[in-house]
Order: sequence, then structure tokens, then C-alpha cells
Amino acid sequence: MTKAELIAQIKEKQSFLCVGLDPDLDKIPKHLLETSDPLFEFCKQIIDSTHPYAIAYKPNTAFFECHGAKGWESLCKTIAYIPKNCLIIADAKRGDIGNTSGYYAKTFFEHMQADAITVAPYMGSDSVLPFLQFENKWVVLLALTSNEGAKDFQLTEGNGKALFEIVLEKSAQWGTPENMMYVVGATRAEDIARVRKLVPDHFFLVPGVGTQGGDLDTVVKYGANDHCGLLVNSSRAIIYASSGTDFAIEAKKEALKMQAQMALHVQRFNM
Amino acid sequence: MTKAELIAQIKEKQSFLCVGLDPDLDKIPKHLLETSDPLFEFCKQIIDSTHPYAIAYKPNTAFFECHGAKGWESLCKTIAYIPKNCLIIADAKRGDIGNTSGYYAKTFFEHMQADAITVAPYMGSDSVLPFLQFENKWVVLLALTSNEGAKDFQLTEGNGKALFEIVLEKSAQWGTPENMMYVVGATRAEDIARVRKLVPDHFFLVPGVGTQGGDLDTVVKYGANDHCGLLVNSSRAIIYASSGTDFAIEAKKEALKMQAQMALHVQRFNM
Repeated sequence: MTKAELIAQIKEKQSFLCVGLDPDLDKIPKHLLETSDPLFEFCKQIIDSTHPYAIAYKPNTAFFECHGAKGWESLCKTIAYIPKNCLIIADAKRGDIGNTSGYYAKTFFEHMQADAITVAPYMGSDSVLPFLQFENKWVVLLALTSNEGAKDFQLTEGNGKALFEIVLEKSAQWGTPENMMYVVGATRAEDIARVRKLVPDHFFLVPGVGTQGGDLDTVVKYGANDHCGLLVNSSRAIIYASSGTDFAIEAKKEALKMQAQMALHVQRFNM
Repeated sequence: MTKAELIAQIKEKQSFLCVGLDPDLDKIPKHLLETSDPLFEFCKQIIDSTHPYAIAYKPNTAFFECHGAKGWESLCKTIAYIPKNCLIIADAKRGDIGNTSGYYAKTFFEHMQADAITVAPYMGSDSVLPFLQFENKWVVLLALTSNEGAKDFQLTEGNGKALFEIVLEKSAQWGTPENMMYVVGATRAEDIARVRKLVPDHFFLVPGVGTQGGDLDTVVKYGANDHCGLLVNSSRAIIYASSGTDFAIEAKKEALKMQAQMALHVQRFNM
């Protein structure tokens, strides 16, 4: 998916919602455990009920991998099931030396046909560049994450710059706003503003709104650019809105609620 | 595997060799492609021929994942096949927010029964701690990698400290030398010495000897401690020593050659 296509979807659906698919057998409705593929069945019903309001889906590989080869099959089926007008982000947080990153890229971009993959920056340019060799595919680089541990290294300042700022400055030279996005947590407004200043044209994938305490209006105020530039992720608040047989209906309500909030902002963007 | 057991193996085999299992269908001998599971068949024969000289094996998940669910099966079979007196390091370079890292830990420590997993530090403490909750299992944290891109962030200095030093100082408080090791590339001797100074008792997993230009004697000089404290990895130089039907015999010769060099050092350690 190209940046122009993504922006067109945002305009069309009046939404910049990304739904995080983290299927956890301890949390999904009990009646699904009797199906032959509970992980896929859960994701399928979530996708069916939320796709009018979502422009992206983000399956997290950890929740599939922990079921071995069968979980891997469920992940492939889930990715294949996501409508083609939605951006598919494999939340895999991979990254290795060049040759090896190339294999991860093939796995997610060619075999699974995901549009994007989250990548960890610690190993530097040659761990990221192989992912940027695929046409119309995206790297979503971890810049400033929403978890507590982000303080340990990402916010470490040296010579007046935090590590996440150094990551942004360097990595912005590896790709373009057409093939690179950044993970920017919603939990600290002033930091979102610092990120936007450094990379004015890139899309951000923003976790941490809702469950983790981030606020949508604040994220838009400090993080949006003229063409939106945001994919705001919600996982638990949507997919676990109910643990009963009505889980897909409740997920739909939550997605719609977020989309409605987002529509107010989309109308103000210059797209 | 405990640290004491690992040290006992080093003493017994007079080796601190880790064999990296990176099975690449473009590089493995052609006759194996006719078998029902070429990835496993290749790894199996490499393990059969090298295990008297190796104290650890390090399958890299990228080379298996790129074959989908079938590749995942091959990875599980490979890990199950590695002799129990060898340390099994899943080279997966995972790391995510706490809950999610917990699932990765279950995947590799419980389902696959690996002894150790490589973890990327960028997301901080809560991305690493879940891996440290498993008895006799190890985190191998990326500190200073052997690739060119290590310069981008790991060597970035601020306030007189490089990022890899900050990673070492903080992370040494999360675990102990009994459940945490560090990836320390062999390519810069002076940096190995800096790492050893900060974490005198931890084991290092050292890539980059051989193919990437690192030298074993230099690594030992600057990186070893009294109880060895090193696992030196070799992948390509051993597993791709020959591309013919004699690949396992040639791999054995290369492993033996490294073990013989290592034995000279092991005799001098105070173990």
C-alpha cells in the first residue's frame, strides 16, 4: 500500500484507527475454544465487525508463535483475511544483521503479504535497510515506545539529545516518508511533539491510547500533520470489550466510538 | 542449563564453541533438497558431526520462519534434536512490552525447550524481565553487535558513555550472571575490554570470529574471565565449509580446528 492510498483510506473511512490483533486463549470468549482454529476465528470475527472503521490491522506475532506451527498457520490465515484496503502491520519487532533481516523481510512481505513490519533499531542501518528494499512495503521503526521501559534507554540524554531523537535523525536518512513510519507512544505529549518536529512528514503508529492512558485529542494536537500522519492503535479496548458471545458486537461499538472521535479530527486535516 | 553446568561442559569438551545454525536453501548441499525436511536434515547432520566439539548451538529463527509453518516445525525438530549437554540458544532477537515478551518467553523456553534466547534491549526493562522469570533459562541481551550498523546507535557517546555501556550497566541490575549473557561482537578488541570491565562475571556470546574478521586469541585476551566467560559463535565457516555431500565431514574438521585452538586457552583458565 502506498502513502497516497493510505491517506485516501483515512479520508474515505474518516478514521485513522489501527486495530491490534493480540489473540490470547486466556482472554478470548470461551465458546471459540471449541472451534478448530480459535485464534483465527477470533481475529476473523473482530475483523468482520470492525473493518468499516479501521484503516489498519496489527497482528502481534507473539500471540501466534506461542502456539507453534499451528499458531503460525493462524497468523498467515489472519493476515490473508484482512481486507486489501487496510494496511497490514506485522507487529514482529524483528531486526538482525543484513542477510538475516532480509529473510525476515521475505517472510512477512512475500510469504505473508503484510504491508508493514515493526523493526527494532538497536542494530543500526544494516539491520533495517533490507526491509526497505520491497516496493510499497513499510518499516515501522521503534522510536519512542509507550511502555515504562522506554525510559531506560530511549529517553537517555547525551549531548542534549535523547536516544530516540538520534534514532529518528539517522533512520530518516535510510528511508522516506513513503516507506518508513515510526512507533511513537501516546503516553507523553511533549515527546510526541519532539518527534513530530524531527520527522514532519512520516506517519506514526501510536500505541498507548486508551488502556495505557494516552489521550486521542492530545495525540492529534501534538502528533498530527497536514495529511493526518497518524495511525492510532487500540488493541485490548476493542478486541476484549466483551468476553462473551457478543464480543464482536462490543468490539464494533468500541471501534465505532473511536472512529467517531477520529472523524472530527479528519475533517480538519488538509487532505 | 545452569552456569555451573555450562562451565563443566567447557572443561569437559575443552571448548567454548557455539555453532550457529543458519540453514539457507540456497547454500545447503543440493542433495538435501530432495529430503522431506531439508532444513532439519541439514541441521541434524551438522549437529551429529560437530557436537563433540561444540558446547552450544544457536539456531537463528529467521532462516526457519521464512518457510512458514513448515519451517517452524523444522526449528522445533532441530531444537529437540540438539544434545541436552549443549546450551540451546534461540537466536530470535525478540523484545516487546511485558505481557507480549512473556509470550515469546513461553514460546522458546516452554514449547521449544531452548535454554536461552537473544533479546533486543531497546524497549527497556519490562521488555526483558519476563524472560528472566524462567528457572535455569537465559537471556542473551544484545549489547555490542558485530555488524557495521552497531556504530549507528550502540557506539553513540553521550556524557562520556556509549549506549552499549549504558545498556550493560542498567541491564546487569535486571538479571545475574546466572541468567543473563551479552552479545559482544568480536570485531573491536578495545570495546570487548570495555564490556568485560563493566560485567566481569557474565558470559558473552561472541559472533564475528572468522567470517566477519574477528580473531579468537584477541577475543580471549580481552574478553575472557577466570571461568572462561565466552561462547564464541561460528556459523558460516563451519556449516558451509563444503557445499557437497561431504559438508558434514568438512563441518566437523572446521569445528575440530576451532576446538583445538580453544583447548589451548581452556587449559589456562582457572576453572
